[in-house]
Amino acid sequence: MKLTEKTLRSKLVYSNSFLDLYEDEVLLPNNKVSKRIYAKHLGAAAVLPITKDNKVVLTKQYRYPIKSVSIEIPAGKKDFKGELGIDCVKRELEEETNYTSDNLQFLLSTHNCVGYSNEAIEIYIAYDCIYEKGIRESDEDEFIETKVYELEEVIKLIDTGVITDAKTIIAVQAYLLKR
Amino acid sequence: MKLTEKTLRSKLVYSNSFLDLYEDEVLLPNNKVSKRIYAKHLGAAAVLPITKDNKVVLTKQYRYPIKSVSIEIPAGKKDFKGELGIDCVKRELEEETNYTSDNLQFLLSTHNCVGYSNEAIEIYIAYDCIYEKGIRESDEDEFIETKVYELEEVIKLIDTGVITDAKTIIAVQAYLLKR
Repeated sequence: MKLTEKTLRSKLVYSNSFLDLYEDEVLLPNNKVSKRIYAKHLGAAAVLPITKDNKVVLTKQYRYPIKSVSIEIPAGKKDFKGELGIDCVKRELEEETNYTSDNLQFLLSTHNCVGYSNEAIEIYIAYDCIYEKGIRESDEDEFIETKVYELEEVIKLIDTGVITDAKTIIAVQAYLLKR
Repeated sequence: MKLTEKTLRSKLVYSNSFLDLYEDEVLLPNNKVSKRIYAKHLGAAAVLPITKDNKVVLTKQYRYPIKSVSIEIPAGKKDFKGELGIDCVKRELEEETNYTSDNLQFLLSTHNCVGYSNEAIEIYIAYDCIYEKGIRESDEDEFIETKVYELEEVIKLIDTGVITDAKTIIAVQAYLLKR
């Protein structure tokens, strides 16, 4: 079956600092015309930080869209188009947690919202993380707490539905499967 | 640390059939005012279909936002606010693949896009799936192929970056960890 859809017209309908929303007119595989609405996003990177004694460093922050505090791996949007995931991840790890690592490994890249966004999140694991005092420099509208967990606690937080963030679940599960 | 943000004003800036985009003015924990932009979404449900002989049923469809064909577990938006995930999943499983199951188990609920959407995806596993000829009735602008895979093939497709869809990766990883 032919699956590809061809762009006929593309119209920017909304724009802000981190995403542009488009309404495109497309030609479907059956030659009918339809509309696709989606966001263009610079992409993001995220990292599962593991300390030298195998503990997991996670962040807590209020996520306004879901109106609740969310426990997540450190992550952030890319600063510019084409920024390397590894550079983004090093920055976010330090800014959000004060931890650093010289042993970062790429895990996978995921599309978290294929239905209406082109956002891709590159996920890394940072092994041998070390706490560096005093380097933290958050964005001015970000309020982030850091907490260090036993791996078993993190698994329980996922199993009990406390951790719901997709990139965090993917990173932790991948880490468990790699061990 | 206080993390909660308080809504001061909420403004709908864009709306379509499956999401509403808001620009809200919020009071930050430090009492400064900031803006939060996010989408309200009805939510979705997805299901990992496993046949009686332990094969995995996946869909292939063109995902316009990422401009490529994506291999995924069957999934769909909820039809109305409050629709049960299990009802949504049964419908999508049949519509997209022609498979049915009497053995559906809830796995977890995930927020796939906490930064700018309240979308929650409930993920299920459907065991003992059976192919039912002739029940398929897709949405008219959806073109979906179904393919049955060995589990090892699916793992390879994730490891090699062919499967990138977050809900699919979460479901497969969780299934592997449960075995």
